[in-house]
Amino acid sequence: MISPSSSRILPALTWLRHYGRRELSSDLVAAIIVTIMLIPQSLAYAMLAGLPAQVGLYASILPLVAYALFGSSRALAVGPVAVVSLLTAATISRVAEPGTEGYLGAAVALALLSGLMLLTMGLLRLGFLANLLSHPVISGFITASGILIAVSQLKHILGVDAHGHTLVQMGHSLAQQLERTHGWTLLLGSGATAFLFWVRTQLKPLLRKRVGLPPFAADMLAKAGPVAAVVVTSATVAVFDLDTQGVSVVGDVPQGLPPFTVPPLELELWSSLATSALLISVIGFVESVSVAQTLAAKKRQRIDANQELTGLGTANIASAFSGGFPVTGGFSRSVVNFDAGAETPMAGVFTATGIAATALFFTPLFQALPKATLAATIIVAVLSLIDLGAIRRTYRYSKTDFAAMAATMVIVLGVGVEAGVVTGVGLSLALHIWRTSRPHAAVVGQVPGTEHFRNIERHSVVTSPQVLTLRVDESLYFANARYLEDTVYDLVARSPDVSDVILMCSAVNVIDASALESLEAINARLRDAGVTFHLSEVKGPVMDNLARSTFLDDLSGRVFLSQHQAMEALAPDTVRRAQVATAT
Amino acid sequence: MISPSSSRILPALTWLRHYGRRELSSDLVAAIIVTIMLIPQSLAYAMLAGLPAQVGLYASILPLVAYALFGSSRALAVGPVAVVSLLTAATISRVAEPGTEGYLGAAVALALLSGLMLLTMGLLRLGFLANLLSHPVISGFITASGILIAVSQLKHILGVDAHGHTLVQMGHSLAQQLERTHGWTLLLGSGATAFLFWVRTQLKPLLRKRVGLPPFAADMLAKAGPVAAVVVTSATVAVFDLDTQGVSVVGDVPQGLPPFTVPPLELELWSSLATSALLISVIGFVESVSVAQTLAAKKRQRIDANQELTGLGTANIASAFSGGFPVTGGFSRSVVNFDAGAETPMAGVFTATGIAATALFFTPLFQALPKATLAATIIVAVLSLIDLGAIRRTYRYSKTDFAAMAATMVIVLGVGVEAGVVTGVGLSLALHIWRTSRPHAAVVGQVPGTEHFRNIERHSVVTSPQVLTLRVDESLYFANARYLEDTVYDLVARSPDVSDVILMCSAVNVIDASALESLEAINARLRDAGVTFHLSEVKGPVMDNLARSTFLDDLSGRVFLSQHQAMEALAPDTVRRAQVATAT
Repeated sequence: MISPSSSRILPALTWLRHYGRRELSSDLVAAIIVTIMLIPQSLAYAMLAGLPAQVGLYASILPLVAYALFGSSRALAVGPVAVVSLLTAATISRVAEPGTEGYLGAAVALALLSGLMLLTMGLLRLGFLANLLSHPVISGFITASGILIAVSQLKHILGVDAHGHTLVQMGHSLAQQLERTHGWTLLLGSGATAFLFWVRTQLKPLLRKRVGLPPFAADMLAKAGPVAAVVVTSATVAVFDLDTQGVSVVGDVPQGLPPFTVPPLELELWSSLATSALLISVIGFVESVSVAQTLAAKKRQRIDANQELTGLGTANIASAFSGGFPVTGGFSRSVVNFDAGAETPMAGVFTATGIAATALFFTPLFQALPKATLAATIIVAVLSLIDLGAIRRTYRYSKTDFAAMAATMVIVLGVGVEAGVVTGVGLSLALHIWRTSRPHAAVVGQVPGTEHFRNIERHSVVTSPQVLTLRVDESLYFANARYLEDTVYDLVARSPDVSDVILMCSAVNVIDASALESLEAINARLRDAGVTFHLSEVKGPVMDNLARSTFLDDLSGRVFLSQHQAMEALAPDTVRRAQVATAT
Repeated sequence: MISPSSSRILPALTWLRHYGRRELSSDLVAAIIVTIMLIPQSLAYAMLAGLPAQVGLYASILPLVAYALFGSSRALAVGPVAVVSLLTAATISRVAEPGTEGYLGAAVALALLSGLMLLTMGLLRLGFLANLLSHPVISGFITASGILIAVSQLKHILGVDAHGHTLVQMGHSLAQQLERTHGWTLLLGSGATAFLFWVRTQLKPLLRKRVGLPPFAADMLAKAGPVAAVVVTSATVAVFDLDTQGVSVVGDVPQGLPPFTVPPLELELWSSLATSALLISVIGFVESVSVAQTLAAKKRQRIDANQELTGLGTANIASAFSGGFPVTGGFSRSVVNFDAGAETPMAGVFTATGIAATALFFTPLFQALPKATLAATIIVAVLSLIDLGAIRRTYRYSKTDFAAMAATMVIVLGVGVEAGVVTGVGLSLALHIWRTSRPHAAVVGQVPGTEHFRNIERHSVVTSPQVLTLRVDESLYFANARYLEDTVYDLVARSPDVSDVILMCSAVNVIDASALESLEAINARLRDAGVTFHLSEVKGPVMDNLARSTFLDDLSGRVFLSQHQAMEALAPDTVRRAQVATAT
C-alpha cells in the first residue's frame, strides 16, 4: 500500500500503480515525436542562452526525469524554452563573458538557485505569488520577448557579429554590420526560415487536402519540419564544405551523457544572481502552470500549483547537477506531447532517453549544422509568441490594464527583460492601488415600491433631505481611507440640512486598521458638527472585526442590518413617500 | 482683483487680502511662543542630523517664509523635525563623513532633491501616493524612530563617544563605553532630562491648580521648559568652566543670516541620495499633512494635499539654498502654534524673523550650551512619539495590520529606518494583495419570504439543486482571477446535478482584463461540461466595461439585473418554495 502522504510527495506513485500496456504505447509514440522536436530546440535555446550546444541536450535529460517524478501535470514537457533562455542570457552575461568557464558556471548556478527557490516556494505553499503577474503583463512580456528573441537571431541569419540587449542596441549594431552579411549564411538561414514558415502555415493544410493525410498525422509531420531543415542544411554545408567558407556551424559537440556537475558555491555570485533567479523562477512557473492547467482541464484533471513548484524546482536542481541551465514547461512542446497522446509523465522519461541516446551517439551529426538553421528554428518558433490580438483586446477593454501591458513591452524592448517584468508588476500593483484609492461611491435613495436602494444619479429614487446615505463600492483600507473621509466631509458640507449620515457597507468586504481610524475620525467630526453617523448592511466578518475595537461603543448612531430598516427608523416619512410613489 | 488661478499658485494671496489688526496680534503672540520653542529644537535636530548647530537655525528661517507663501495650512509650523532629521543622518552618513564639508553638502543636496520631488509630486497631483503608507505602518515607524532617536541621544547624556545605526549596534557601543561616562555631563544631562520630563508631566497641573493660572497660560509656560533648561545649564557650564573639564558644548556658532548656498550638482551624489530623498519627502509629507488636516478640521478649514506638496517642496528648496537641511511640518510645534492662536501663515513669517534675529545676535549665547541639554530636549520630545496604545489596539483589531506594523518596527530598530519603511509599505501591499487574492466567497440561497439572497452557511435559506449561485465579495482582478476559476471548478465538481451556475456580482466593483480572461475560461469550460454560466447584479460601470469585450456575446447564459429575477427565470420552483416557506 502507498500512503496518501507519500503520493503527495512523489505524485509519480499515483500513476505508476496503474501503468499498463496502453499507457506504455501512448507514451512511447508521444515521446518519439517530442524527441524529434526537442533535439533542434534544445540546441537552439542553448545558443540563445549563449551556451555550448551540448548544454541544451544536458538540460533535456535529467530535468525531464525529475519532473516526471515530482510534477503534477500529466502532459507538461519540461526542458529549455525560449523566454527563459533569453532571461538566462540577460542574467549571466552580466556576471561573466560568454564562452568562458565562468559563463557556464553562472548558468549552472542560476539553474540551482532557481530550482531551490521554486522548491522553497512549493514547500511554503507560495504558489499564489504567481498571481502578482497579471495576464496583460504576462502577455505583453511574452510578446515583447518574442520580438526581442527574433531580432537577436537575425545576426545568425546574416552571418554577422552584432550584439546588444535592447531592440535599439541590436538594431543599431545590425545596421552597422549589414554590409558584412555573409552570402552563404544568408542563403541557408533565409532558406531555412522560409521553409519553416511554409511548414508552419502551409504544409498542414497541404498534407490534409492534397495528400489526404488524417489531421493528426499531418500535424505531427509538420512538427518534424525543423529536423528536416537541420538535415538538409547540414548536408549542404558538409557537401560543399561551406564551414571552411565562413558559414558558422555548431561544430564539435562532445559525445556522452551529461557530466555530474558541482555548481559553483560562491556567495558573491549567488547574491548577484538572486533577483534574476527569482524572476526566472516565477516567469517559468507562470508559463508552465498556465499550459499545464489548460491541458489538464481538457481531461478534467487538476493541477496543484504548489506541487508544480516542487516539480519544476527538482527539474532545475537536476539540470544544475548535470551541467544544464534553467528549464521550465514549454508551451508548444507540451501541446505536441498532449496531442501526440501522452498519458503519463513516463512520456517525459522516454523523451529523456531519446535525448540521452542523441547525446551519446549522434552529436557528430551536428558538426556541420549551421547556426543559421538554429536561428531560423528559433525565429519561427517565437513568432507564435507574438499576440497582437491580445494587445488590441486589452486596449479596448481596459486602459489601465493596457498601460501596464504597454509599459512592460516598452521596457522589455527598450531597457531589458527583467526591468520590463518588474515595471509591469509594479505598475499593475500601483494602478490597482490607485483605482481602489478612489473607489466608486454613490449617494443612494429608495427605489419606489421596493426595499432596494440605488444610486441617485442612475435611478429615479426617493431621498430624504435630513438623512444622507453614502454607498462605497470598495473595501475600506489604507489606500482609500483618506478618500472616504474627504468624500463624507464634502457631502456633509454641501448638505446643510443633514442630521444623519448612513454609510451603506454592502460592498465593503474589509475595514482595515487605517480605515477604522478614518471611521473614528468621521464619527468624531460629524458629532462635533451635530450630525449622527450610522452604518448599514455591514457584512458578518466585517462586523465581527469592528466588535474587536472601541468604534461601535463610540459610534454616535446605530448599525442597521439593512438599509431599509435604517430608513424606516431614521426617515419614516421618506419610506412612506416611497411606498406611495409605487401606488401612483 | 486676484484671479482664482493665481491664488491657487500662491495661496497666500487669499488670506493676505483680509489681513487685519486682529490677525496681526494673534499671529505675533503665536510666533513668539513658537520661536521660544523652536530655538532649542532647531539646534537639537541639527545635532541629531549630525550637522553644526547653525544649520538648524538656517533651516528655520527661509523655509518658513516659503511655506507661508505656498502652503495651504493656516497653522502648520514648518522646520526641522525629529524623524526627518534621523532619516537625514542615516542617509548622508552613507555618502560622507560627519563633520566634513561633504557631509554638509550632502544635507543641502538632500533638501534640494527632496524639495524638487515634493514640488514635482504637487504639480503632477501625486498626493494620493501618500495613501500607500497605512496608518499602522506610519504609527509603527514613528514609534520605532522615537525609540531609536531617544537611544541615540544617550551618548550625549553620558558624555561618551558611542555610535551605530541600529538598536543593537547602539546598545553594544554604549555598553562598551559605559565606564567612560563623564560625571559632569551625566549630571547636567540627566538633570535636564528629569526637569523637562517634570515640566511635561507635572508642571501644567501644578501651575493650574496651585498657582491658579488659566489653562492656556499654564500650557504655554510649560512649553518654555526647554529654554529654561538651556539657560540654566549654559549658565552652569559658563560659571564653573565645565567645558574645559570635558563637558561637550555647542561652542562657536557663526553669527549672521543664512548664507546663500549653491547645492552641489554632482550626478553621482544625487543618484545615491535619490531613493532616500523620495522616502524623506513622502514621510515628511505624510506627517505634515496629517497634522495640518487635524488642525484645519478643528476650524472647518480644508487642506489641499497637492498644495501642501507644493508648500513643503518650496520650503525644502528654500532650505537648500540657505544652507539648511530637510524640513517638514512638525507635530508638536504646529499644535502649539494653533493653540497659541495663529490665524494665518504670517505667524510662520514672524517666527522666521525671530529665528533670524537669533542667528544674527544671540548665537554667542550658545557657546556654553551643553550638548547634553539638547539631547535631553530631544529625548523628552520624542517620548511623545512612542504610542504603545496604538500597537495594542492594532494587534486586537487586525492581525495583518499588526504584522505590517511589527515588521516596520523590528526592521527600523534592527536594520535601519529606510529599510523599515520600505518593508512596511511592501508588506502592507503584499498582505492586501494576499487578502484580496483569496476573497470571501459564499454560495447563497433565498431568504424565505424576501427577495434577499444570503450565505447558505450563515442563514436558513432555500436553494435549488440545479442552479448554483456563487457570490464573490471582492472586485475581480489579477490577484484573485485564478482563485475565482478554482472556486467555480471545485463547486461544480462537487455538485453533479448542477445545470446552471450564477455568479452574483453585487460586491464586484471592477473586473480587470485578467479576471475577464478567467471568466471567459470559466464560461468555456462550463459549456464543455454542459453547464450554463450566468451573471447577476452586475453594477453599471462593470457592465459598461464588459460590453467592450466579446464576453457577453460568448456567454452561454444570461446577465440578470437582480438575483431574484435570475432565480425566477432559472428555478421558478425554488422561488415558489421560498414563498411557501414564508406562509408557514
